[in-house]
Amino acid sequence: MRMYDCIVKKRNGGELTAEEIREFITGYVRGDIPDYQVSALMMAIYFQGMTQAETLALTMAMAESGDRLDLSRIPGVKVDKHSTGGVGDKTSLALTPMVAALGVPIAKMSGRGLGHTGGTIDKLESFSGFTTSIPTEQFEENVRSIGISIMGQTADLAPADKKLYALRDVTATVDQMSLIASSIMSKKLAAGADAIVLDVKTGSGAFMKTQEASVALAEEMVRIGNGAGRKTIAVISDMDQPLGYAVGNALEVKEAIDTLNGKGPADFTELCLTLGTYMLLVGGKARDEKEARAKLTEVIANGSALRKLAEFVAAQGGDPRQVYQPETLPKAEIMEEIPAPSDGYIAHIECSEIGICSLILGGGRETKESRIDLSVGLVLHRKVGDYVTKGDSLATIHANDRGKLETARERFLKAYTFSDTAVEQKPLIRDVIR
Amino acid sequence: MRMYDCIVKKRNGGELTAEEIREFITGYVRGDIPDYQVSALMMAIYFQGMTQAETLALTMAMAESGDRLDLSRIPGVKVDKHSTGGVGDKTSLALTPMVAALGVPIAKMSGRGLGHTGGTIDKLESFSGFTTSIPTEQFEENVRSIGISIMGQTADLAPADKKLYALRDVTATVDQMSLIASSIMSKKLAAGADAIVLDVKTGSGAFMKTQEASVALAEEMVRIGNGAGRKTIAVISDMDQPLGYAVGNALEVKEAIDTLNGKGPADFTELCLTLGTYMLLVGGKARDEKEARAKLTEVIANGSALRKLAEFVAAQGGDPRQVYQPETLPKAEIMEEIPAPSDGYIAHIECSEIGICSLILGGGRETKESRIDLSVGLVLHRKVGDYVTKGDSLATIHANDRGKLETARERFLKAYTFSDTAVEQKPLIRDVIR
Repeated sequence: MRMYDCIVKKRNGGELTAEEIREFITGYVRGDIPDYQVSALMMAIYFQGMTQAETLALTMAMAESGDRLDLSRIPGVKVDKHSTGGVGDKTSLALTPMVAALGVPIAKMSGRGLGHTGGTIDKLESFSGFTTSIPTEQFEENVRSIGISIMGQTADLAPADKKLYALRDVTATVDQMSLIASSIMSKKLAAGADAIVLDVKTGSGAFMKTQEASVALAEEMVRIGNGAGRKTIAVISDMDQPLGYAVGNALEVKEAIDTLNGKGPADFTELCLTLGTYMLLVGGKARDEKEARAKLTEVIANGSALRKLAEFVAAQGGDPRQVYQPETLPKAEIMEEIPAPSDGYIAHIECSEIGICSLILGGGRETKESRIDLSVGLVLHRKVGDYVTKGDSLATIHANDRGKLETARERFLKAYTFSDTAVEQKPLIRDVIR
Repeated sequence: MRMYDCIVKKRNGGELTAEEIREFITGYVRGDIPDYQVSALMMAIYFQGMTQAETLALTMAMAESGDRLDLSRIPGVKVDKHSTGGVGDKTSLALTPMVAALGVPIAKMSGRGLGHTGGTIDKLESFSGFTTSIPTEQFEENVRSIGISIMGQTADLAPADKKLYALRDVTATVDQMSLIASSIMSKKLAAGADAIVLDVKTGSGAFMKTQEASVALAEEMVRIGNGAGRKTIAVISDMDQPLGYAVGNALEVKEAIDTLNGKGPADFTELCLTLGTYMLLVGGKARDEKEARAKLTEVIANGSALRKLAEFVAAQGGDPRQVYQPETLPKAEIMEEIPAPSDGYIAHIECSEIGICSLILGGGRETKESRIDLSVGLVLHRKVGDYVTKGDSLATIHANDRGKLETARERFLKAYTFSDTAVEQKPLIRDVIR
């Protein structure tokens, strides 16, 4: 394989063979193929696209470019769950204990937040002492003994994806469906689960802004997963406004605990039940959707999901008492209401702006090196479609800095659009791709 | 300007400003902008093209990226001539003394050959002692005193083009009309002439294989030249078979001398008269085409063009006696005829293959470091449309190595296609773009 010939072939609309793609990826990771040829190929792919066979081959090559987790010593069907990221997306915190309580082994790698979206690991660190920096042996042992463990992503998982993504990021070649899908799926495949349930967000707070783009990405990822022999299902869910009410690390943990106590927001609870249903189905722990949903509702009602969360927190060095006393989680010093500026129906919330408000308060990372404040964030009281009277509180800001609070408040109000007439609410679950 | 934003803009079909292009070029030459971003931009340009304004801006930025020749101290309209390259293209050798003899100052930079096309400098070095490595002062002085000088291209002429072309060459982004045109024209603009006559070759031996592509390239270059304030004309000429009969350095010099003696091949003579006509017109040395052609015919007939060649050779260290005794030019040891394998009309000559035969014999460079044998090559006796009887000599091979001769002979015969019926001859001059 000559890299030059691969560029020409793709530039002219041809299809690269699996062999060519594998040699390109291994040569690139090894440093034999220079960045400037790879970026030219990426731009050619931006314009010419990739076939399903090429996309699968690229994903496999990247998945095989470094360490791969071997979960085969853990009995049962290991199910992974992945969200494309959104604002207020604390799903893993509530969902994984729910399905783990029903016998689906959860062996999950998670990431930290960057920009306007948060990360599961940051949120979990709201429990004092909790860590995801655990050796693989303990990770495996925890999954075997209590059915759940979450660890931080190791440096050697799909290093080709890491290198390629960094290059795409500075050469304007990120925004291509097959490349996005293969980037996500290569890490999922390397992480070793037998089945994968994907939560593909759609809307103003999501990476994919339109339903069409979200469905296309979901289809591409489901094809890759199934093509690689992992049963894969994708749920398309709304991210036109924040999920639930809480945005901010400890605030989201509290909302997840509320949800496991049966007192969570309706939309967030529904998303957990939907994703949980598919996780139980692919994990072989329910015969149909009805049975799955009944079981999930039951583990909330009987407290076993909450107990599973406490077990999980304790097993990774955290204080399990905080699960039962969420008021002991990190708390901000200043709490202020944001009154509605006028009467009307809430027509639209510019979702990513709410994420940015939390970032401004100190709850997110502007760069990979930023330190975050786990206590700050926002708790919404009204969402799209609700009617408000001037002066009603739209949200409570939790802050530790008066200046940041004022900046966030101003930005928050600009994110809301009001209407005199009633507004139709969009469904939370838009589609299921399998 | 952020390079990333430029890539996005072009990728999305936008138009870069002259300012953005200038900053990109200066940043790239300075080493501030990495190759991988530039190759991504080049591939985006491959797909999205460039507007006329962008193409002119890129050409100007590259022309201004290094040294520029200042010919303003030389009186008169300085006219440059450029060929896109072909097989047997010895045009500059005969044409420049013709127009110089008529008072058009020739201050020309030329290149060496690479691959299947030859270079003017290599050919000129067939005169013993001749050199193009002369200081700029002597170059200028020669133009002022005898009206003609040719020097090798200095390293600092349009360094941006040099760097960009090397990158395009390994990232499959050479083949884009605006980029090709700006590459050629940036060097012409930096070389300082007031007017430019372009010989754009078309056909199997040319870079542009089709009439449409050649016309498009010519139009692009003429627009750039005129846009930069240099009067520019392009002639589209045939390169579906070698120009004239001789292919190989000293053999081509001999054919150029024959032509200045009025005994050159009809096609080659006609091309010199046509290009010379436009050079006299843009140089203000003739009122119309008829007068120009008459003057050019006259300088051949009265020997003044040949004398100008001798003056030129002497002024750059060469032996002027060889102009009058071309049999003293480098000569190969072995000369063998290639008999026609059958009766028939010559329907087609795969022109680039004839160039490769000369390369095989040692007359060309496979890489920039190759040393060449000035004496070897081929002299055709029959061209497209001619009828041959089996055994008639198609060409004479001039070689210094029996093995190379046999390889070249085999390849030569494969380049010819014969037909039982008469073959229409294509015109030499296809179009003139001004």
